[in-house]
Amino acid sequence: MKFNNKNIYIGQNVKIGKNVKIGDNSVIYDNVTIGDNSIIGNNSIIGEPLQEYYYSKNYNQPITLIGENALIRSNAIIYAGSEIGSNFNTGHFITIRENTTIGNNCIIGTKCDIQGYTTIGNYVRLHSFVVIGQYSNISNYVQIFPFVVLTNDSKPPSNELLGPQLDEYTVIASSTVLLAGIKLGKHCLVGANSVVNKDYDDYSFINGNPAKYVCDVRKLPFFTNGKRHYPWPYNYKKGMPWEEEGYGKWEKSLGND
Amino acid sequence: MKFNNKNIYIGQNVKIGKNVKIGDNSVIYDNVTIGDNSIIGNNSIIGEPLQEYYYSKNYNQPITLIGENALIRSNAIIYAGSEIGSNFNTGHFITIRENTTIGNNCIIGTKCDIQGYTTIGNYVRLHSFVVIGQYSNISNYVQIFPFVVLTNDSKPPSNELLGPQLDEYTVIASSTVLLAGIKLGKHCLVGANSVVNKDYDDYSFINGNPAKYVCDVRKLPFFTNGKRHYPWPYNYKKGMPWEEEGYGKWEKSLGND
Amino acid sequence: MKFNNKNIYIGQNVKIGKNVKIGDNSVIYDNVTIGDNSIIGNNSIIGEPLQEYYYSKNYNQPITLIGENALIRSNAIIYAGSEIGSNFNTGHFITIRENTTIGNNCIIGTKCDIQGYTTIGNYVRLHSFVVIGQYSNISNYVQIFPFVVLTNDSKPPSNELLGPQLDEYTVIASSTVLLAGIKLGKHCLVGANSVVNKDYDDYSFINGNPAKYVCDVRKLPFFTNGKRHYPWPYNYKKGMPWEEEGYGKWEKSLGND
Ligand SMILES: CC(=O)SCCNC(=O)CCNC(=O)[C@H](O)C(C)(C)COP(=O)(O)OP(=O)(O)OC[C@H]1O[C@@H](n2cnc3c(N)ncnc32)[C@H](O)[C@@H]1OP(=O)(O)O
Ligand SMILES: CC(=O)SCCNC(=O)CCNC(=O)[C@H](O)C(C)(C)COP(=O)(O)OP(=O)(O)OC[C@H]1O[C@@H](n2cnc3c(N)ncnc32)[C@H](O)[C@@H]1OP(=O)(O)O
Ligand SMILES: CC(=O)SCCNC(=O)CCNC(=O)[C@H](O)C(C)(C)COP(=O)(O)OP(=O)(O)OC[C@H]1O[C@@H](n2cnc3c(N)ncnc32)[C@H](O)[C@@H]1OP(=O)(O)O
Repeated sequence: MKFNNKNIYIGQNVKIGKNVKIGDNSVIYDNVTIGDNSIIGNNSIIGEPLQEYYYSKNYNQPITLIGENALIRSNAIIYAGSEIGSNFNTGHFITIRENTTIGNNCIIGTKCDIQGYTTIGNYVRLHSFVVIGQYSNISNYVQIFPFVVLTNDSKPPSNELLGPQLDEYTVIASSTVLLAGIKLGKHCLVGANSVVNKDYDDYSFINGNPAKYVCDVRKLPFFTNGKRHYPWPYNYKKGMPWEEEGYGKWEKSLGND
Repeated sequence: MKFNNKNIYIGQNVKIGKNVKIGDNSVIYDNVTIGDNSIIGNNSIIGEPLQEYYYSKNYNQPITLIGENALIRSNAIIYAGSEIGSNFNTGHFITIRENTTIGNNCIIGTKCDIQGYTTIGNYVRLHSFVVIGQYSNISNYVQIFPFVVLTNDSKPPSNELLGPQLDEYTVIASSTVLLAGIKLGKHCLVGANSVVNKDYDDYSFINGNPAKYVCDVRKLPFFTNGKRHYPWPYNYKKGMPWEEEGYGKWEKSLGND
Repeated sequence: MKFNNKNIYIGQNVKIGKNVKIGDNSVIYDNVTIGDNSIIGNNSIIGEPLQEYYYSKNYNQPITLIGENALIRSNAIIYAGSEIGSNFNTGHFITIRENTTIGNNCIIGTKCDIQGYTTIGNYVRLHSFVVIGQYSNISNYVQIFPFVVLTNDSKPPSNELLGPQLDEYTVIASSTVLLAGIKLGKHCLVGANSVVNKDYDDYSFINGNPAKYVCDVRKLPFFTNGKRHYPWPYNYKKGMPWEEEGYGKWEKSLGND
């Protein structure tokens, strides 16, 4: 019932893989490559040109790569100069600016805004309405909830921009502000509506405005099937690479333990 | 000047009432029913298919119902499997996912995101940018302001999702987080930028991060025409069923008092 | 590669300046004027009609003015009855309602929501996801960061709406709530995730929920090239009218000092 191929515009030097479907009213600009079996929803713009395009005669449209098996829901805008891995899954109305690198198996929720010049690992999940400021760095398996903003300017407005850096498995609950340049270790949990203004080590549970260290996440009295819930990968598998075998087995198979 | 019937796509088994207007570039998918005198703005998608649609041969498109006299502004996305009452009024760029039930006379503001599996009563108003997590339950006459999120996961990420439950006439001021599963009684007021982490009885005014009980809303020194402002239905009529007769009279007419 | 003039609708009494470019699937309603050299991105709606349009036979479409050299990115919705100066620059998916007056050289970030009946000066910058409630008043050179909301109802819901008033050069960091009717002087800085519930004088640095006065911004130990960073116009020039000559010289040239 979908994919009527109505009113689609496809630019030059566009490489479209096998079995790709493109929704009505979508625009694929020049120099875009889309991997096999990917789906682009209606009204989307892939390879949106940078600002120079409008004003410079010598504009060079950067290459845009979307991996295989993407499901990009309707009204997405992905700028030229972004590189996205396989199995990418998005909500609606996402905006991703230039020089964003996203790994494999990531989920970007409805109305997220990734402002570019940012690196995102594999299996990262942003829920709806997450803002990722420029020069942020997000490792594998990070999960970020609605209305969180990763800021990059510690004395706004200034020209010294530096985004936060989040290490693997860290979780940022809803409506939290991460101040510019802060670093969180692996397996941290930041409570909802916090303001994080300094660095924290692996396994920190921090909370509040300004955020304070509360305890090690492994001490948190949150349980799943009678066992401590954190670190969460032991208890949450949906869409994770350890989905079938369990996190412990999977981790061992990597030779990490 | 509008409604040129350009580039509209209408699926199969779509029932469109009398005097319905559909904006340009809009898509109405299969099994959608739209009540009489409704207006669907440009670039909208009604009956957006669920994820299974893209991957399963046996996909069954659920029924979508939009009541009469709707005014759904442009760029709305309403998933298949939603049921919405009469006199529905929305802003732009709203997203409503499957298994959302919305009563009559509701207003959903610009860029709201209702994530599905949720029940919303009558005369509910969400202002712009409200996020309603799955498994939330919102009673009649509730009002929610911008950047509020109703969360549903108390130890993210987990598989035990449970949304908040808001009873009639309760008001949630801007930028507040309601934690998973909390219950607020009738006529509560939650101050702006709060984090609510437990249940509160009828008439509670609560505020802060974490929220604390402040006083009974009936004690709040906020006045309208010299009378206490809360409970607000005595003092606010716009769009309410007691508009002509006043809240007291209306309430009596129901035999409630 | 862009601007294929596909599926564009242009109403009556529309005045389009020289060298204007309009993206595919965009709609320009009646009584809109667009200045020379302006660019309107794809899927935009300029002159969106007010609610009366749908229900009244005598609807009068107000005039909409967009100045010269605008760059309005895709999926913008600007209501009829707005007046916007020259060099306007926006992100995607912005919504601007009726009776909004915006000066020259303003930047409105992706997914901002300006709810109308509001005056915004020159050189104002709203980053992504800023909500400006009705009856707000924002002076020149103000900068507002993501997820900030300017509220206008101090006892919601009520009919007594009054927005905040921000004087020149004031900066509101991310995720802050400004309560209805508060006034901030010139050169103030409000820290991230604050709730501002009263008025503050020029040069105030305030922070917290509820916000408290911390110190004069000129005492803040934030430095650029060895000099105090605040007041910021001495240290930040990008896009500002003093770009070439420096803020001090520019200010003197105005005879202000
Ligand atoms: C659709 C969606 O968007 S879902 C969004 C995802 N979910 C979210 O964003 C919300 C996530 N939840 C949060 O952010 C919460 O604020 C939390 C988890 C950080 C805190 O939750 P609260 O319920 O307020 O817990 P609280 O502050 O009481 O502390 C949690 C527990 O830690 C315990 N704790 C606190 N300090 C310590 C300590 N030093 N040592 C050990 N335990 C401690 C507390 O005692 C409490 O346990 P208890 O309930 O047995 O007393
Ligand atoms: C466009 C839009 O989006 S509009 C958005 C809608 N509006 C909003 O979201 C904002 C709504 N406002 C809020 O959330 C505010 O923070 C409020 C109403 C909760 C609190 O407002 P404040 O102005 O900070 O009030 P404050 O904290 O001083 O307390 C309010 C009053 O309650 C009183 N109060 C506090 N505690 C008590 C108590 N125990 N008993 C009685 N009164 C009390 C205070 O004394 C104060 O009264 P006063 O002004 O006479 O001293
Ligand atoms: C992409 C994007 O969206 S970018 C978004 C733009 N950026 C933002 O929104 C975030 C802006 N940053 C903020 O809001 C921060 O919270 C700030 C700047 C308000 C505070 O930052 P913090 O790092 O938490 O600073 P803190 O609270 O420790 O105080 C700042 C400094 O002021 C100093 N200070 C505090 N009180 C006083 C005082 N009374 N007198 C003098 N100095 C004081 C502190 O000592 C501190 O200095 P120090 O670091 O030398 O000790």
